[in-house]
Amino acid sequence: MKKNLKLGLFGFGCVGQGLYHVLHETHGVKGEIKKICVKHKNKTRPIPEHFFTFDKNEILNDPEIDIIVELIDDANAAYEIVTTALKNGKAVVTANKKMLAEHLEEIYNLQQKYGKPVLYEGAVCGSIPILRNLEEYYDNDLISSIEGIFNGSTNYILTKVFDEKKSYEEALKKAQELGFAESDPTLDVKGYDPKYKLVIAIAHTFGVFVKPEDVINIGIDRISNLDLKFAQENNYTIKLIARAFKQDGKVYGFVAPQFIENTNPLASVRNEFNAVQVKGAFAETQLFIGKGAGSYPTGSAVLSDISALNYDYTYEYKKHHQDTDLEFSNDLSVEAYISFDHDSKVSISDFVEFQSGYASGGKQYMFGKISLNKLQAFSKIEGIGIILSPKAVVATSQAVKQLAVA
Amino acid sequence: MKKNLKLGLFGFGCVGQGLYHVLHETHGVKGEIKKICVKHKNKTRPIPEHFFTFDKNEILNDPEIDIIVELIDDANAAYEIVTTALKNGKAVVTANKKMLAEHLEEIYNLQQKYGKPVLYEGAVCGSIPILRNLEEYYDNDLISSIEGIFNGSTNYILTKVFDEKKSYEEALKKAQELGFAESDPTLDVKGYDPKYKLVIAIAHTFGVFVKPEDVINIGIDRISNLDLKFAQENNYTIKLIARAFKQDGKVYGFVAPQFIENTNPLASVRNEFNAVQVKGAFAETQLFIGKGAGSYPTGSAVLSDISALNYDYTYEYKKHHQDTDLEFSNDLSVEAYISFDHDSKVSISDFVEFQSGYASGGKQYMFGKISLNKLQAFSKIEGIGIILSPKAVVATSQAVKQLAVA
Repeated sequence: MKKNLKLGLFGFGCVGQGLYHVLHETHGVKGEIKKICVKHKNKTRPIPEHFFTFDKNEILNDPEIDIIVELIDDANAAYEIVTTALKNGKAVVTANKKMLAEHLEEIYNLQQKYGKPVLYEGAVCGSIPILRNLEEYYDNDLISSIEGIFNGSTNYILTKVFDEKKSYEEALKKAQELGFAESDPTLDVKGYDPKYKLVIAIAHTFGVFVKPEDVINIGIDRISNLDLKFAQENNYTIKLIARAFKQDGKVYGFVAPQFIENTNPLASVRNEFNAVQVKGAFAETQLFIGKGAGSYPTGSAVLSDISALNYDYTYEYKKHHQDTDLEFSNDLSVEAYISFDHDSKVSISDFVEFQSGYASGGKQYMFGKISLNKLQAFSKIEGIGIILSPKAVVATSQAVKQLAVA
Repeated sequence: MKKNLKLGLFGFGCVGQGLYHVLHETHGVKGEIKKICVKHKNKTRPIPEHFFTFDKNEILNDPEIDIIVELIDDANAAYEIVTTALKNGKAVVTANKKMLAEHLEEIYNLQQKYGKPVLYEGAVCGSIPILRNLEEYYDNDLISSIEGIFNGSTNYILTKVFDEKKSYEEALKKAQELGFAESDPTLDVKGYDPKYKLVIAIAHTFGVFVKPEDVINIGIDRISNLDLKFAQENNYTIKLIARAFKQDGKVYGFVAPQFIENTNPLASVRNEFNAVQVKGAFAETQLFIGKGAGSYPTGSAVLSDISALNYDYTYEYKKHHQDTDLEFSNDLSVEAYISFDHDSKVSISDFVEFQSGYASGGKQYMFGKISLNKLQAFSKIEGIGIILSPKAVVATSQAVKQLAVA
């Protein structure tokens, strides 16, 4: 049953090196690395030289190679590699969330056209097998929402800030030293990285392809000491939450920091761990927790994809085939705390439903229901902080309502 | 691709009725109930009479029926139904953990012999897709342990006792009213139900078939008010934990109540929720949380199995094919608190390593390392309480050690 697949790797960083060792040590996966394409010519590498090439075509045009494993940082180069590989009749494993989020619909279409699969479990929440579960287990379920902590480095930072009272800068530095933060930390702290993952998750949860630029992301880089104090006084922690849900025939999705009550299971998800919570009509609430960053957790997901290709596994995009009339929308109001340092920046009229306001330590707060578009505009103004309330989104689950009627 | 499978049901309780409705409402699963075998002739039922039969052979011998969905309580009758169905060339979906735990090796062999699958995701931790994940996602991983809260009704009882200060009896009664507790509550409170699930999980985690009677189960029915007080004073909660792990070529597994530190993610798993934690070398720690009891969560898992049969899914028992030299063993010492009401019952010499002892409110405690066999003997003596310490088992993960060497 198991074939001995020949692999062509792109990139030989932590994940690639881990993969090389694992393939030589485990007998569960049949796969042999034939060639590895790397960029830098003058690096000393821990395995024999004959494995390496600097010419991508040596791999992409090799008829002996069955699977391209793409593990590089550069999203544009990754896009070229993945699309060429598909056209050349090769299966692909990638963990490049930015590239996938930007080109998912095209990559879906290319898979249909060329009949070769692209698997990317490693792209969404590292070791958590969320895509496979969405594809396999939830295909018969009426899913109402998916949400959680989709970024390990910001969660690490927030944990250090809350649990160990470290400063934001100190915590960020530590996250980067440990390799949790992306090379460009703004991708993490401004919420782009979790947004890319959310875009991919939305396709597999609701069958809708949405462009990353259409999804609102608000980061944790504006959280002030006063916000932290407010959280602590109210027994809240703050988490960067990515979420998407279905309501009245529309799909909503966004990334934003949120106050989380200490009794919420997400509050106990610490450090570089990620968490994904899926709500459906029959399975009800499911929570998956696992490491979302680091070379081994990601490597584990990549390895699992290679293993799945051994038995010709392919994402079926079942929700996309089932629900084609769903549309993505940002036309939504949520409950949020807005903190600001100067009177002119925020006013009551910015709210759809103003609830309360107060001032403390030279800073003002306003709390109420506010539109996503207004939040996005605020997120671009210095001196304004945005944190969703613990019950920011009370998704009236269509699925559950449907069930109650039945 | 999708076939319109014909189903024959056994049992029409909550799960069966839910399934009937779901199959008529979701378009994700192709499946049609042809006949339902029930026991009681004089019940009024909510769907047309022509669906029902009282003769099991009318279903088992019907060549038109592809899948037998077995949802009855009686393990012996279920065994007859499942084995006959396989011999008659039918696929089977069942959620009967007792029957599966008692006959798993035989059912595995019958699947090989007759070439038809038996799926039973609903048998282990309700809605949590743990078996599918163990089969699919962890097949390439070096798993070191699986543990968690495998029983919803005892977790409900313990939650009520700890969070709402209800008495044990009151909490048990409430659990039964809500339908979380099995019809015979001793299966839950004495730890048999989680043991059956553990036996099934061990087969899919480590590839070892073990008989339920060889696995030690200690229940929560001996927990005294003094034990509760001790827990609260130390900031612990108590959970009934099922666990299995691999160490030095052996597999160990048992069910016992355990003090859990409040910072442990398992402490936040409340009410009828279940949790499964899997540790492996590459994915590291994965935690799955979901509803473990109730008709919809179980129905969701059953439905998912039916859906999987649409594309000829079958458990491959990969670990069983890979690791055939592993053996199950009870030759292990764990750290435990033993409470007892009379001097003669427990002595220091019962411990492999005695650590401390004290008396309070007419009851005595001893704490130390003690063999599993001694614990089992104690569990049969009135007036002795057994609760594992928070760090009862510090599993030196072989998998992780292996990795460190690599």
